[in-house]
Parts: sequence; C-alpha cells; structure tokens
Amino acid sequence: MSSSDIFIGETIGTAILILLGGGVCAAVTLKASKARNAGWLAITFGWGFAVLTAVYTSAPLSGAHLNPAVSLALAIKNHDYSTLPEYWGGQLLGAMIGATLVWVAYYGQFHAHLTDKEIVGGPGAQATAAKAVEAEEKGAGPVLGIFSTGPEIRNVVQNLATEIIGTIVLVLAVLTQGLNDKGNGLGTLGALITSLVVVSIGLSLGGPTGYAINPARDLGPRIVHALLPLPNKGGSDWSYAWIPVVGPLVGAAIAAGIYNVAFA
Amino acid sequence: MSSSDIFIGETIGTAILILLGGGVCAAVTLKASKARNAGWLAITFGWGFAVLTAVYTSAPLSGAHLNPAVSLALAIKNHDYSTLPEYWGGQLLGAMIGATLVWVAYYGQFHAHLTDKEIVGGPGAQATAAKAVEAEEKGAGPVLGIFSTGPEIRNVVQNLATEIIGTIVLVLAVLTQGLNDKGNGLGTLGALITSLVVVSIGLSLGGPTGYAINPARDLGPRIVHALLPLPNKGGSDWSYAWIPVVGPLVGAAIAAGIYNVAFA
Amino acid sequence: MSSSDIFIGETIGTAILILLGGGVCAAVTLKASKARNAGWLAITFGWGFAVLTAVYTSAPLSGAHLNPAVSLALAIKNHDYSTLPEYWGGQLLGAMIGATLVWVAYYGQFHAHLTDKEIVGGPGAQATAAKAVEAEEKGAGPVLGIFSTGPEIRNVVQNLATEIIGTIVLVLAVLTQGLNDKGNGLGTLGALITSLVVVSIGLSLGGPTGYAINPARDLGPRIVHALLPLPNKGGSDWSYAWIPVVGPLVGAAIAAGIYNVAFA
Amino acid sequence: MSSSDIFIGETIGTAILILLGGGVCAAVTLKASKARNAGWLAITFGWGFAVLTAVYTSAPLSGAHLNPAVSLALAIKNHDYSTLPEYWGGQLLGAMIGATLVWVAYYGQFHAHLTDKEIVGGPGAQATAAKAVEAEEKGAGPVLGIFSTGPEIRNVVQNLATEIIGTIVLVLAVLTQGLNDKGNGLGTLGALITSLVVVSIGLSLGGPTGYAINPARDLGPRIVHALLPLPNKGGSDWSYAWIPVVGPLVGAAIAAGIYNVAFA
Repeated sequence: MSSSDIFIGETIGTAILILLGGGVCAAVTLKASKARNAGWLAITFGWGFAVLTAVYTSAPLSGAHLNPAVSLALAIKNHDYSTLPEYWGGQLLGAMIGATLVWVAYYGQFHAHLTDKEIVGGPGAQATAAKAVEAEEKGAGPVLGIFSTGPEIRNVVQNLATEIIGTIVLVLAVLTQGLNDKGNGLGTLGALITSLVVVSIGLSLGGPTGYAINPARDLGPRIVHALLPLPNKGGSDWSYAWIPVVGPLVGAAIAAGIYNVAFA
Repeated sequence: MSSSDIFIGETIGTAILILLGGGVCAAVTLKASKARNAGWLAITFGWGFAVLTAVYTSAPLSGAHLNPAVSLALAIKNHDYSTLPEYWGGQLLGAMIGATLVWVAYYGQFHAHLTDKEIVGGPGAQATAAKAVEAEEKGAGPVLGIFSTGPEIRNVVQNLATEIIGTIVLVLAVLTQGLNDKGNGLGTLGALITSLVVVSIGLSLGGPTGYAINPARDLGPRIVHALLPLPNKGGSDWSYAWIPVVGPLVGAAIAAGIYNVAFA
Repeated sequence: MSSSDIFIGETIGTAILILLGGGVCAAVTLKASKARNAGWLAITFGWGFAVLTAVYTSAPLSGAHLNPAVSLALAIKNHDYSTLPEYWGGQLLGAMIGATLVWVAYYGQFHAHLTDKEIVGGPGAQATAAKAVEAEEKGAGPVLGIFSTGPEIRNVVQNLATEIIGTIVLVLAVLTQGLNDKGNGLGTLGALITSLVVVSIGLSLGGPTGYAINPARDLGPRIVHALLPLPNKGGSDWSYAWIPVVGPLVGAAIAAGIYNVAFA
Repeated sequence: MSSSDIFIGETIGTAILILLGGGVCAAVTLKASKARNAGWLAITFGWGFAVLTAVYTSAPLSGAHLNPAVSLALAIKNHDYSTLPEYWGGQLLGAMIGATLVWVAYYGQFHAHLTDKEIVGGPGAQATAAKAVEAEEKGAGPVLGIFSTGPEIRNVVQNLATEIIGTIVLVLAVLTQGLNDKGNGLGTLGALITSLVVVSIGLSLGGPTGYAINPARDLGPRIVHALLPLPNKGGSDWSYAWIPVVGPLVGAAIAAGIYNVAFA
C-alpha cells in the first residue's frame, strides 16, 4: 500500500465511521429526528454497523485501521512504525470530516434542539435540564455527546481503566483475525466479526464512559464541536479529552503485549 | 444477463424489497397490527433484511440492483448505460407491485386505522392528531409514511443533502464489494453486508428524512398511494416527491466519481 | 439421505425450531419470566435464530426443511414427491415434541400465569382482560399465542392472503439458495441467510396473522395445546386452524411456479 | 494443542466471555450507566456477542470451548478425557478474572448503586424494593444477577430441566458444527453461528432461570461475588449454586448421547 492510498483510505473510512457513528447519536438525541429516543441498542448497533460500513469501504485502500490504537498495536506487533503518520493523520482528518457531515445531515435538527427552551435551560423537562446543568458545569454542552464521549461518573482512574479494558478486547480481536482467517481469504467476514465485537464492547463496557476505544473517534469530533457555529452549544469538556486518547493507546499496547506473549 | 432476465429480476426483487420494507412500516404504524409501536430499531432492521431477502432472491437473474441510483453508479463506473432502461423500468414496476402487496397483506389494518376517529381527525390522542393535521396541511396523509418518505423539517437544501450523503455511503459500499470479495465468490456474503450497511444508514442518517436513498423505493409507492382506494387517505405530498428522486441520483454520481478517483 | 435420517433429522430440527420459537413467545408473554414484555423485536429475532439453530443442527441429517411448505415446494421443483411422507411426518411429530418442551421449560410460569386472577378473567388489568375475553369468545385461550398463530382481524380472505404472501417470500429465498451458493459449499451461510429472511418476514408481514408460514409450526403446537393439562387454558381456536395450513401450502406452490418460470 | 496453550487460551477466552457477559448485566442494571434499563434484547445480544468475541480471540490457542459442559460433550464424543483438567481449570480461572474485571470497569457504578437508599432497602421504588427483599430472603443480594444466574420461580426440578434443555440445544449446535463446516475451513463463521445460537437460547429459554448453560459462567463469578468488598452486597445464594453446574453437565451428556446415536 502506498502512502497516499493509506492516507486517502483512512480519511474516507474514518469519515464514514464518524458520519455514521455520530449520526446515530444525533438521530437518537435530537429533536425532530424520527429516531429520537430509539435507545441504547440502536446506539450500539449503529456504531457497530458504522464500523462494518467504514471498514468495508476503506479496506481495499488502507486495510481499514480507522483507529490510532489499532494502528499502534499493529505497528508494535510488526515492529514497523514507518506508516503511523499516514494512518494517524488520515484518521484524525477523517474523523473531523465525518463529524462535520453529521452537522450537515442534521442541520435543522441541531438548530431546533439547541433553540428549544425546554431542552436548553428552560423550566420544562426538569430532570433532563438538571442533568444538563450538571454536565454543563463540568464543561459538557447539551449536544457534545453527539460528538465525543463523556463519563457518567468522573473518576480518572476508573475512566482510564474502562477505556483500557474495552480497547484490549477490541485490539485482541483485531490481532487474532489473521490467525482465524488464515487461508480463507475471508476479509469480508472479518469486517463483519469486528463490527459485532464493537457492538459487544458497546453493550457490555459502554455504560461508564461511552466507549471511545479510539482516540480519533473522540478527539476529531471534539475539535469540530469547538469550531462549529452551533447556538447554545456550551463547552467541549477539554478537561476530559485526554482520557479517551491515552486510555485506548495504553490498552492497545497492553493487547499487543498479550498477543506477542500468548499467541505469536 | 438477457434484457428479460434483468427486467424480471429487478421487478421481482424490487417488489419483495418494497413489500417487506413498506410492510414493516405498516406493521409498526397501523392499528390492529401485532407489531404496532415496535420502534425505530424494528423499522431499520426490517428495511435492512428486506434488502437482504430481495437481493438474495433476485441476484441470480439481474444482479440485484433494486435501486435506480445503484444502477446509475454502476453504469458510470462501467461506462455502459445500455441496460439502464430495463433496470429502471423493472425497479419502478416492482416498487409499485410491492406497495400494492403491502395493501393486500394489511387490508383490514388499513381500513381499521383510517376509519378510527381518534386517529383521523378526532378529539382523542391530541398530540398525534395535531402532528397529523400539521402533516396533512403539507400534503401528507396519515398513512403516507407506509408508502413514501417525508422530512421531519422541510428544508430543500438540508433534505437534499441528507439524501445525497446517505446514498454516497450506500453506493460506495456497493462499488467496493467487487474489491472486497474478489476471488472469494462470496456473493451471498455481499448481500448480507449490503443489508447491514442499509441498517447502518437507517440508524444513523434516517432521522431527518426517513432515508429514501432509492428513487424507485419512494416514487413507486407514492404513485400507488395516489391510486389506491383508501378511506381518508389524504394527500400524497407531491411537492416533496422530487427530492428522494434527485438526491439519490446525485449521490450516486458523486460516489461513482469518488470511486473512480480513489479506488479504480 | 435415507428415510430414517430424513425422519429423525426433521423430528430433531422441528422440535428445536418449536422449542425455541414457542419458547420466545412464552418468555415474552408469561408472568415470572425475565423476558416478559421484551417486545416484538425479541419475538422476531427469537423465531429467526430458532430457524438458524434448528437448520444448523438438522441439516447434516435431512437437509433441514422443517416446514411442510418448503418440502412441498422442493418436491414440485424436483418433480419428486417420494419422500414427502417422511418429511411431513417428522415435521409434525417434531413440532409436537417442541411445544411440549416449551411447557416443561416454562412449567412454573404457565401455572403462575394461568392462575393469576388479574390475567385470567379478574377485574384488574381491564384492557388486557377485555382483549382476552374477546379472543376467548372466538375460541382462543389466554396462552394459545405461545403455541399457535391467530389473526388480529378475522377475515378469511385477508388472513389467507397474508400467509400466502409471506410463504412465497420464504420459499423463493429457499429455492434461490442453490443458485446463490453454487460451488461455494456455503451451506452454513445459507442457514444464516434463511434465518434473517424469517426475521424479515416476521417484522414486515407478521402484523396481521403472526406469520405461521409453516403448517407444522402451527398445527403441531395447537394439538399439544388441546392435550396439555393447563389450568384455565381455554379453547384452541380450531375454526382458524386450517388457514395456517392451507395458506402456506398454497404459497409454496405459487413460489415453486414462479421459480420454475423465472429462474429454472 | 499443548496443555499450556489450552489453559492460557481458555483462561483468556472465558475471561473475555464473562467480562462482556457480566458487563452487559452491569450496564443494564446499575445506576449511572448509560445503558441502564436497555432491556432483555440488550442482555441476550450482549451475551451472544460476548461469545463471539471470546471464541474469536481464543480459538487459535485452545479451540475455544469456554464452557465445561462443551468440554465434557467433546470428551464424550471423542472418547478422550485427558485434557479436561486444563480446559475446566482455565475456564473457572478465566471466569473469575472476567467477573473481577466487570467490577473494575463499573467500580463507581457498583458503589453508587449499592449505596443508593432507594435501591437498597429504602422506601422509594416500592415494587423493586419488595422484589429485592424477597430475593434477599432467599439469599440473593441486589447485584448478584450481574455475577450469577437465579430462578424467577424456585423449583429444583423445573430449574434443572430448563438448564438441561438449554444446554442440549447449545451442545448439539457445537457438535454439528464439524458436519456443517466440513472442508470449508469456515471456523470464523462457526463462531458467528454459535454466538447467534446463544442469543436464541437466551431469548427463548432464558425466561425462567437466566440461562447459565455453562457451569464456569455461573460458579466463577459467584465465587468472586462472595469475595469482593462490595457494600450491602447481600448473599451469594449458594443454595442455588449447584443447579447451573449440574444441569449443564447433564445436558451436555445427553446431547453427546443424541449426537452419537443420530449423527455419528
């Protein structure tokens, strides 16, 4: 794979990943969306099939890492860090493009939601408002959850641990794919398996932090949230932003270590 | 593939697609249906597996485009527009047959729903009635959603953009199938992947407009809605009808362009 | 395949199909079940994966028809009716065994449900009771839905039409499997596809009659319902019993005809 | 496979199985989890995809039994009991590691939940509290369900029967995998099928006892529940603990017998 194929593939793939992943969060969250309140199962399947779609459409170009943690783990496994810049660069750029496309696709919904008095600071919907106020005090605006992850309980050690554990599971599944599919040429099936692994991590480990398990998935859209001209958008919660970057990278390194000891 | 195989395959396949896709909308919407209020996840999986069933049962005859936008993109990719008439003709005819079969399968449910005073214009169920009245003023009758798509917020630019973005994702996945499955002969697996991509688009990008992403899927059933002898059926919202036709075709052309630049 | 392998395979497979299919209805319906009120999506995925499990565990013995309508369609397609008795016999016996196993697995739940005064004829839960009384007048007891299907609106023509349409879709998917999987040896994938087709039919066409689409699936458990010593079980609705037998057989014959004309 | 590969593979795989399976129960149960009250479908898909992830990441080392009942059935089928100690040992150790990791990932949620006065013994949420008190009298603390299974209705004969029936279905599907995938080398697809079989068993047979169908899945986490320093954790319900051990082992033996008679 050439450097440009890697960069273009990762940009396209991660843009589709975040368009669809951020999209399902917008769909379930925003006013005047047909999918409003579709629930946690919709979010986890939405992100899982976002992975499927994104992997499938970028694998022929770049191998579809779409996640700096995955790229790091594969670099550790293969003792080859030479293409990390192309991978990481494409992933961050793609994530920012994807988050911007979510805003385009849900333009009217964002406006209707953020200018609704009952949703943003009004007296109605007391419980929701109270929760939103609490989040806002910590720096997270009312639609930040469509862009980036955030913890239900703020605890650096636990939040890091949860992201590390989730990423270990993801990366072990990615690393063992080569052992499972050897000789079958079933790359397409591998994309399906990976997507269901992501559904699994979401259902099982997403409760505390919202399962970033991918630095680009969290950082790119957070930057876009800070830049977009959304009314009443509130803060981008930058104090939390390092956890979904560091946690997944640490998890990836641990998973690569487990792989090299137990499987290689 | 002969011209008649293409036409018959697309007619059968698109009829099954719309029978099952419109069917799930009827199942979730209509009074006296066991699936009433089964939710957005039921609708998105219902449409996704409708694609799976329809592709599977028509692929041996016509290759299972089942979507004028897909046929257009493949024609652009292959520089061959000679079979577009058979594809488009079969797709529109099949969509009309499928929508009619939904009416047959849910005959009693349509009647019970449309003659229920609380649902159609009555004093009960105020919120629903208010929403129905608002939709009706814009030209959409109370069961049009079983046949065709409609926007939650009417905005030509955004509605077009959402349909274009959704179709780009769909068509990129279809076009890269050849690259992913090369030599595996895994056409069946391709049908499964495509169906899950459609679930993904529905979950993530269906909120604003109901994801037509297919001109035949929207236009054929809208014509049938205008023709069927349904009591109190209301308008067929023709002022919106061009968007789910033009949007997907534009999206398909953009996706084919991306494919030819980045992947070919 | 020997006659005894066919009979044993169909008996095992259909028993598993009805154990799991009837089981999900019991799980969602009965008091003191962890899955109570899990909803229509649970029922449709439950029946779909019941098909997957049953096909997978019986295919090596009998080819896993598990449905008299499927056996009939394959007999018509292959012009060979010689093994129909073994298939139909095993299917009916297996369905009766499966329905009995549902009763064993949910023994305490059946008793708790049918002796609960609020559920059976009591003053509480008015709406449910009213609906139950209405059904009872038509001959269907309060747990018959765990065993057999029944219509939301009683209309012989529509009920037959819905069952015929659903079965045509199912049988077309089964018949085209040979064309899709030719040379891949992907029988396992075929089982997965068929199960998702059944989920699709359930989501899209199950609303009016509960999608029997299989004479043995409906008749065998209805006989068991009539025989089991359940308290307050009410009637077995024999006046409806012929529709989910005749409808699917007619649908299978039509689908075989479509196949022979368009695909063969 | 070497003894150490078996032990390490089963330890890793069962740890992932219980981390993700216990994780989804924590996610749906605990206060301050984004997935709270996500429902039975989330639990059954969560456990199913936990199986998928765990099998996929351990199959290259140990063949991924991850269940003492599966190991027993394969030993009976192959007349080779020599590696049972490595399999059973790794499975129990892995299950205990997995349950501990659930506690780490949901640390703050466990604390918030178990110190909430309305959840643990308080006057609010009367129905829940009444149910919790009833369970507690039988020896099951308020979060035991995140670790181990328990019956809705306590009846030794029925509870054993339900676990036996569920395990027969699981083990028959595992044993017939060799017949279905012969020569395809589709081990990866087998992992997917097995995971959907587990979803099926959960949806259809999970209502009465919570479908342990795996002695290690129940016993390992129950030991961890007894050891962890959780506030107000209550009892570990040891009087029930033998049923999800004995039931699955009996079911596995019966399934191996059926296999040897009908399929071998």
